[in-house]
Amino acid sequence: MRILVTGADGFLGRGLVARLMEAFPEARQVVLTDRAFGEPPLPGAGTVCGDLAEAGFLADLLETGFDLVFHLASLPGALAEKEQELGHAANLLVPLALARTAAARKPGCRFVFASSIAVYGDLAGRTVTPDTPTAPDLTYGAHKRMTEILLSDLRRRCALSAVSLRFPGIVARPASESGHGSAFMSLIFHRVAAGEAYDCPVPADSHCWWMSRRAAVAALLHAARAGGDAADLVQPPVLHASVDAVAQAVARLAGRPADIRWVNDEGLRRIFGAMPPLDAALALSLGFRGDADLDTLAQAALSGD
Amino acid sequence: MRILVTGADGFLGRGLVARLMEAFPEARQVVLTDRAFGEPPLPGAGTVCGDLAEAGFLADLLETGFDLVFHLASLPGALAEKEQELGHAANLLVPLALARTAAARKPGCRFVFASSIAVYGDLAGRTVTPDTPTAPDLTYGAHKRMTEILLSDLRRRCALSAVSLRFPGIVARPASESGHGSAFMSLIFHRVAAGEAYDCPVPADSHCWWMSRRAAVAALLHAARAGGDAADLVQPPVLHASVDAVAQAVARLAGRPADIRWVNDEGLRRIFGAMPPLDAALALSLGFRGDADLDTLAQAALSGD
Repeated sequence: MRILVTGADGFLGRGLVARLMEAFPEARQVVLTDRAFGEPPLPGAGTVCGDLAEAGFLADLLETGFDLVFHLASLPGALAEKEQELGHAANLLVPLALARTAAARKPGCRFVFASSIAVYGDLAGRTVTPDTPTAPDLTYGAHKRMTEILLSDLRRRCALSAVSLRFPGIVARPASESGHGSAFMSLIFHRVAAGEAYDCPVPADSHCWWMSRRAAVAALLHAARAGGDAADLVQPPVLHASVDAVAQAVARLAGRPADIRWVNDEGLRRIFGAMPPLDAALALSLGFRGDADLDTLAQAALSGD
Repeated sequence: MRILVTGADGFLGRGLVARLMEAFPEARQVVLTDRAFGEPPLPGAGTVCGDLAEAGFLADLLETGFDLVFHLASLPGALAEKEQELGHAANLLVPLALARTAAARKPGCRFVFASSIAVYGDLAGRTVTPDTPTAPDLTYGAHKRMTEILLSDLRRRCALSAVSLRFPGIVARPASESGHGSAFMSLIFHRVAAGEAYDCPVPADSHCWWMSRRAAVAALLHAARAGGDAADLVQPPVLHASVDAVAQAVARLAGRPADIRWVNDEGLRRIFGAMPPLDAALALSLGFRGDADLDTLAQAALSGD
């Protein structure tokens, strides 16, 4: 069994790679790719540095087919909105080329795509279900949705066994990472845990969707194992909670009070802090699990897992 | 004012071109493009033959920007399903490149896209509204939906003033045209009008969505004129009627009985003959009109307009 992970040195990628060998002991070859690797590669895995937007690099990388591809590489949403050409290449042309080439080299191979809840756009407070229409209001979400549609079509034609997972902003990203509009959702963990004051850019009762890296990695691995049986689109279970409730959970774990000044960046609140409830019954029936509760989330988010 | 029409020698294109000068007397330059032109070009319009999938041709064509682009060129659905590489180029890469290049050359220009009801997929009998989720079950519909999403995003960013019109199979195409799964919807007009026997591949009570070329052209021109005010996605009003009811309307017009044997190609019935009712209130409120009734449809479909 041959496995490819793109974006393998990203936040989600590093979390996945740390659990990959244990999850797939039958893997004969694991190839990790990213533009660069800041940490030592996983023992037993090969690392390949390059830009997937370069056609020659992508073709060489996929010259021998893979049985399982995790496509995690993408340009973060806020950055893609500013840098339209980079976003078009990284978030649309790359996934299309990667999926079509993977299918051509190894028809029917499993392809797990890290999509985003940015596909929904304005939800107007309505509970999200598998029937919720999508109307992305950021270019990032438009590209993710376009990729989902292509993958579902490849799956329908049995060219790929593809599944798209719609992730919220995963927490807690390192404070140094940039380009994510949802950065505040991670910073709140770091600042409260460290006992530092924090100007949170959305009001205290802003409701976000929360998922730890631990839960996101478990969802990726579950999607990879479920083969062609799961749905083509999965909204993994998430916690629906206010930023204040999350700050309080972190404060409980840290054993110190949260020192937060609530500000209102209306753009951020609208995109990330106005999320409605989620009906995750389908994903739960397929065996996907989110974080159990806010205390579990806080512990996982700060554990480094 | 400079106008570009792609697919200008296609069935819909020829109908549009015939009315273009009258609709836009202020047009300073009209450029018609297609892979080849079988009929004499419109007086006063320039024709450019070439393949939009060739990057150099597309770049040259758009070197000077256009104020208004009608993008009608596409590979028909049944053909695109068989010829996946051609379909990917013609129905996905070309519209993406055309829209992005048109926007780069003339930011904010009007871009009218001939999308398709193939974006919906299986509607399970539910009335179609602007909130109906899309789940295309043909590659053709997947590509149309992906293009719609890109255009809506370009519109949101004011890069293009784009509108996508979701057309059903337009009637009555010339009997000689091929590659359309919906060909039977046109053949029924020609055969009944000529008093010829016809083996219709779907049962008599199969309900399709019907629109004459005259009504489709009127929708394209209305979309072009409405500027940035209309919605980004428009489902033009259509007639919802059984193939038998349409055959009877044609027979009335022709003054001879319809001689039809009803067969059941389940694939065709499912895709084209199981259409639910349409709630076209939004399009009607925006000034879009379909054919008035089946007699009007039959007359328009057989008029050559």
